[in-house]
Amino acid sequence: MASTFLRDCSTSSTVRLLHLQCRTNSLLPLHGLAPLSLPRTLGFSRTPISLRALCVASASPSPPPSATAEASLSGEGCATVIDGKAVAKKIREEVSAEVARMKEAIGVVPGLAVILVGDRTESATYVRNKKKACGHVGINSFEVHLPADSTEEEVLNSISGFNTDPNVHGILVQLPLPPHMNEQNVLNAVSIEKDVDGFHPLNIGRLAMRNREPLFVPCTPKGCIELLHRYRVDIKGKRAVVIGRSNIVGMPAALLLQREDATVSIVHSRTSNPEEITRQADIIIAAVGQANMVRANWIKPGAVVIDVGINRVEDEESPRGYKLVGDVCYEEACKVASAITPVPGGVGPMTIAMLLSNTLASAKRIHNFH
Amino acid sequence: MASTFLRDCSTSSTVRLLHLQCRTNSLLPLHGLAPLSLPRTLGFSRTPISLRALCVASASPSPPPSATAEASLSGEGCATVIDGKAVAKKIREEVSAEVARMKEAIGVVPGLAVILVGDRTESATYVRNKKKACGHVGINSFEVHLPADSTEEEVLNSISGFNTDPNVHGILVQLPLPPHMNEQNVLNAVSIEKDVDGFHPLNIGRLAMRNREPLFVPCTPKGCIELLHRYRVDIKGKRAVVIGRSNIVGMPAALLLQREDATVSIVHSRTSNPEEITRQADIIIAAVGQANMVRANWIKPGAVVIDVGINRVEDEESPRGYKLVGDVCYEEACKVASAITPVPGGVGPMTIAMLLSNTLASAKRIHNFH
Repeated sequence: MASTFLRDCSTSSTVRLLHLQCRTNSLLPLHGLAPLSLPRTLGFSRTPISLRALCVASASPSPPPSATAEASLSGEGCATVIDGKAVAKKIREEVSAEVARMKEAIGVVPGLAVILVGDRTESATYVRNKKKACGHVGINSFEVHLPADSTEEEVLNSISGFNTDPNVHGILVQLPLPPHMNEQNVLNAVSIEKDVDGFHPLNIGRLAMRNREPLFVPCTPKGCIELLHRYRVDIKGKRAVVIGRSNIVGMPAALLLQREDATVSIVHSRTSNPEEITRQADIIIAAVGQANMVRANWIKPGAVVIDVGINRVEDEESPRGYKLVGDVCYEEACKVASAITPVPGGVGPMTIAMLLSNTLASAKRIHNFH
Repeated sequence: MASTFLRDCSTSSTVRLLHLQCRTNSLLPLHGLAPLSLPRTLGFSRTPISLRALCVASASPSPPPSATAEASLSGEGCATVIDGKAVAKKIREEVSAEVARMKEAIGVVPGLAVILVGDRTESATYVRNKKKACGHVGINSFEVHLPADSTEEEVLNSISGFNTDPNVHGILVQLPLPPHMNEQNVLNAVSIEKDVDGFHPLNIGRLAMRNREPLFVPCTPKGCIELLHRYRVDIKGKRAVVIGRSNIVGMPAALLLQREDATVSIVHSRTSNPEEITRQADIIIAAVGQANMVRANWIKPGAVVIDVGINRVEDEESPRGYKLVGDVCYEEACKVASAITPVPGGVGPMTIAMLLSNTLASAKRIHNFH
C-alpha cells in the first residue's frame, strides 16, 4: 500500500514542477473523520475555523520531504469528506418523487434519448449506466446505437428524429464521436430545448452572460456546485480557482462560480505558477485529468476541494491492475483542506444525477409543469 | 488643478476601501515620456525591465499618505502611453483600403444599419459618430430612428427588415432601449450573421468555448486586445486581471484574454480584496465605471494597464464643468505601469474602429471575399 501510494503520486507530471514526493504512510486512514450528515455548514468564517484548529495544525501545508514532515503526517486527516454518492442518491430520490408526481398529475413521463456511435467499451458502459439510472427514477430512456463507420448524416438524422419526438425531453450524444465526424456540427444539431448536456454554445453564452439564464447547465460542473450548495459552502465573495478550462467542465465551472459571485481565476497548462495561484483559493475545482497533480502545498489551509479528475494509476494490489485517483493528491489534501471530494465517490456520481435532474427540468418546462 | 485632482480621485467609492487619498501635485506631467512610435515590444521579460529600472524606483507602488510619499511622486512618470487614437486611425485606414479593394473587385460596399429608439442625447451622439466613421471609410450606413414610445414589435420589425436586406452586413441596436422593451428579445432578433456588436449569446458562447470561433467579438473588448497586440504586449502565460464583469466589456474581455492563454482572474463588486488580486496582474483591464478606482497600490510595477472607464468628474476649470477620467487614477498609475491607455484617447476610439472592422469582416464573409 505504502509503495503503491508513492508510485501514484509520482505518476503526475506535476512532480517535476513541485520537487515534492508523496510520502508513504501505511497507517494513514483515507480520512480521519466520518462523513458528516447533510446538510452541513462549511462557511469559511464559521465551522472550518474549529475544524482547522482541531486538525490542520498537525500537517504542514507545504511539507518538505524530510523525516520531520513524515512525522507531521502521522496524525489523522481532518477534512470533511464530501460524499457525492450520498448527495447523488438524495438527488435521484428527489427526481424520482418529482417524476412520479408529474406522471400522476399530467400523465407525462420524462424521456432521455442517448445516441451512441461506435463500440468504445467505456462509452457503452457510460450509456448503460445512464439508462440504468433513468430506469431507477422512472425516466424513459431511448437509445440509438450506430456503427463506428456511420456517416455524420445518419447521426444528424437520429438527432432530428429525437428533436421532434414529443416523448423525448433530453438528447445526449455520447462523446467522443468517431474522428471522421464534426463534433461541433453534431452537438449543434441537438435542439436547444432538449440539450440536457448543456453543451450548445447558446447555453454556454447564456451561462456566461449576466441577466441571462441558460436552459441547461453542463452536468459535471453543475454537480460540483450542487455539492458546494448541499454542504452549505459559502461561495459569494470567496476566491475560487478552477484548474482546467475544458468546454465540458473547467470553463462552465468557472462561469457558474462567477454567477454565484465568487472571484474566479482559471489556471491551465500555460499558467506559469499554478500552485501559487491555487493556494489563494477558498474553493478549488480541479478538472485537468492529471493524476495527483494538486499537492498539499497548492492548498490553502481550510480550503474546500472539489476533485473532478478520474485517472487510472497502476496498482499491483488491485485485481484490475489499476486504481482510480483524482487530480488532487487526496491523502495530502485531506490534511490541509476543510472539505474534499474523494475519487471515486465524489463528483463522479453527481454527473448522472444532474443529467436526470436536467431531463426532469426539461420535461417540466416543455409541459409547463411546476 | 491640484485641488481638482484631489476631488477627482475622491469621487471614487473605492477611496473608502483604500483609505488613500490622491495627493496633489501640480507639477506632475500627464506622462513623462512621449508616446512611442508603433509597433513597440512590451514583453514583460524584455523592454519593461529597463523601463522599470529607469523610472519606477522613484514611485512607491503603495505609497502611504505622507509627505515622503508626496515627494516620491515628484519624479517624472514613465509608462508608455498606449495611443488608442493613433491605433484607431491606422485601423480605419486599413478598413478603408479593404472597403475600396472589395468594391473594386466585386462591386460590393459593406453596410451598417443602426437602430436608435428614443431621444437620449448621448445615444444620438454615438449614432452620429458611428455614421460619420462609416462615411470616412466608405461603409454605407443606414439608420432607423424610432420614437421612445415605439412598441417592441416596431423595433423587431426594423431588425427583421435589416436581417433580410442584402445591402446590410451589420446591425447595431443602440443601447439602452426604453425601459418598456425587453433588451434580450430585441438583441436576440439580430441575425447572428449580422451581429457586429457580438452581443448575441451564441457569439458569446462560441467565444467562451475552445475550438469554436465566434462570428463577431464585442467591439470594446476586441479593441482592448487589439491595443495589446499592436503594442506587442505578450499575453500568453501572463497573469491578467479584468475588473468588472459586464456583458459588453468585462466578461468578453476575460474570455478573449483566456483564448490568448493568459491566466485570468475576474474582479468585481463582490471581491473582498480587489487591490491585492489586481496587484498580481501583468495585464489589467479596468472596466467598472468608477472614476479613479484603480490606484497606484493596485498595480504591479511594470504591468500594462488598459483603462476602459469613461467617467465624468467635476472640473471647475473646464468650460463644460466636468472632465473625463478613467477607472484608473492615471497620474498615479503611469508612475508604476510600463504602459497605460489614457482617457480620453485610449480604448474609446478603438470601439468604433472595431465596429467598422467587424462590419467589413461580415461583408467579406457574406460575399466570400478574401
